[in-house]
Amino acid sequence: MKAVLLEGFGGVEMLKVGEVEMPKPGEGQVLVKVAATTINRPDLVQREGKYPPPPGDSEILGLEVAGIISELGPGVTDWQVGDRVVSLVGGGAYAEYAVAYASHLMRIPAGMSFSEAACVCESYITAFLNVFMIGGLKDGNTVILHGGGGGVNTAAIQLCKALTPNVKIIVTAHPSKLERVKQIGADLVIDFTTTPDFSEAVKDFTNKKGVDVILDHVGAKYLAPNMNSLGYAGRLVIIGVISGIKAELNLALMMVKRQQIIGSVLRSRPVKDKAAIVAEFTRTALPKFADRTIVPLIEKTFPIDQVVAAHRMMEEDKHFGKIVLQIADI
Amino acid sequence: MKAVLLEGFGGVEMLKVGEVEMPKPGEGQVLVKVAATTINRPDLVQREGKYPPPPGDSEILGLEVAGIISELGPGVTDWQVGDRVVSLVGGGAYAEYAVAYASHLMRIPAGMSFSEAACVCESYITAFLNVFMIGGLKDGNTVILHGGGGGVNTAAIQLCKALTPNVKIIVTAHPSKLERVKQIGADLVIDFTTTPDFSEAVKDFTNKKGVDVILDHVGAKYLAPNMNSLGYAGRLVIIGVISGIKAELNLALMMVKRQQIIGSVLRSRPVKDKAAIVAEFTRTALPKFADRTIVPLIEKTFPIDQVVAAHRMMEEDKHFGKIVLQIADI
Repeated sequence: MKAVLLEGFGGVEMLKVGEVEMPKPGEGQVLVKVAATTINRPDLVQREGKYPPPPGDSEILGLEVAGIISELGPGVTDWQVGDRVVSLVGGGAYAEYAVAYASHLMRIPAGMSFSEAACVCESYITAFLNVFMIGGLKDGNTVILHGGGGGVNTAAIQLCKALTPNVKIIVTAHPSKLERVKQIGADLVIDFTTTPDFSEAVKDFTNKKGVDVILDHVGAKYLAPNMNSLGYAGRLVIIGVISGIKAELNLALMMVKRQQIIGSVLRSRPVKDKAAIVAEFTRTALPKFADRTIVPLIEKTFPIDQVVAAHRMMEEDKHFGKIVLQIADI
Repeated sequence: MKAVLLEGFGGVEMLKVGEVEMPKPGEGQVLVKVAATTINRPDLVQREGKYPPPPGDSEILGLEVAGIISELGPGVTDWQVGDRVVSLVGGGAYAEYAVAYASHLMRIPAGMSFSEAACVCESYITAFLNVFMIGGLKDGNTVILHGGGGGVNTAAIQLCKALTPNVKIIVTAHPSKLERVKQIGADLVIDFTTTPDFSEAVKDFTNKKGVDVILDHVGAKYLAPNMNSLGYAGRLVIIGVISGIKAELNLALMMVKRQQIIGSVLRSRPVKDKAAIVAEFTRTALPKFADRTIVPLIEKTFPIDQVVAAHRMMEEDKHFGKIVLQIADI
């Protein structure tokens, strides 16, 4: 089968489309003929050799697939060959065929394209898991969503608007993205280039109360302003550390305000945990895609042969929403 | 009424027994004729002027009362004058009469003395809230309980043995207290004077898995060894910062291992939150006192006139379990 391969770890020049053997679905797995996947930031880190796939998962890049089931592995009874599905995968999505766990599959709602469906898993499940299931955001709360315009950020904004319409949304973003972030639902946007310490703006906006939940992928540089922005019993969920790893924490403030810091990753969780997350997402969030309340925002769709251009676009970070990689026109 | 008063903030010499006006129970409150209270570490900090009572609470020291209801405030219907009760209070327990919220009262089980009952609220509810309700300890887990021999520590050990008998308990303690900590149920004891970085011993004991929950009151000095001792999805609950406030946190490790740090205090929580905590404690833990599975460990009981000696004993930190202050012999 055709797949995106790595000639070595490094820059985009390492990406090559080539031929490899098809994978075989194991117990409880299915083989998916992939129509589309998306570019996610961890793919770039993996390409650089700094984010190996979890043991047992494919070495090929790609964290989510949309396509058609082409083969059932042993013990799979709830699904049939020909079903249109999307799924999280631990790796292997940049290829014509990929293996997915049956317990991680979701049926693509009628009227949704494969390109749209490909956007659902990694970004929306990450946002859903961390903002709602872990962060515990409730309607009427206030939330800070960093990284305005990115895949997880736009997914989080859309999920908040759809599931908790009275949540106040604060977004930090590059000035070029502020306007669109506002258009899709942010109540307060903060330019991170001019306001690296956003906590004062947050205090003003919340009448000094602070926010209930923060979804952060920035890490060290934002730890202090994040903690200063959290209200009583607020939760800071850390899903990335792009600015650095180590930072000083004020434990006394955290104790008196009963704040929480929660580290979170999706990819390396046990299969059973992911199945439970997918089940909750299917129950709560997927209907909002089915009725078109949420339509994934796609910046551009690249065919598999242009994977280098797709990675370049992610690296330049001027996109808004998702970058799709079309594997096959099915 | 008679009460322990402060002549100013400072050492034990500031404590004076004197006369003040009796408090009046407000809406939803009762007046308790106090038989006994206990000395808790926050009392010492408050005496030094560094821990003022929450707004609206008594300026008099003391966080829990055991006694008899002597008057009902407006709107209290579930309790009667003469009921034997214990209660958390925001302050005011070092006195002949103290005001408590009806929603925070627990009935003293038959066969339990006022001195024993006085030990239940602050230490056991703190341990129960933070180890079980917040820390989420489940039977079969492993837990680290710092401060071996202290009020909260001995309460936490007893609660673990009674509620989750298959939990493995690791305790750090002063060498003089190791043996007794082991006697009351610790599976591994670590001498903190010789082993300030306890994380290696914890890794050995847990076959590198790390622990599920840590209850910590030490703060800055223990942050790194605590995080190194936590396993995947482990929770560090911070209820004190006696060693210092600020420490460096490794966010990447925390993310990859999906660890949580949770700040927690009991005293300043809203009345409604405390009522919910007391209700859960009454349902789950109080029956273990009623059937004598748990008997509070009392180091010594001092009459109110010897409050200075009682504070001195807490400061010397050689006690094991609780120090009781008897207010009246009723």
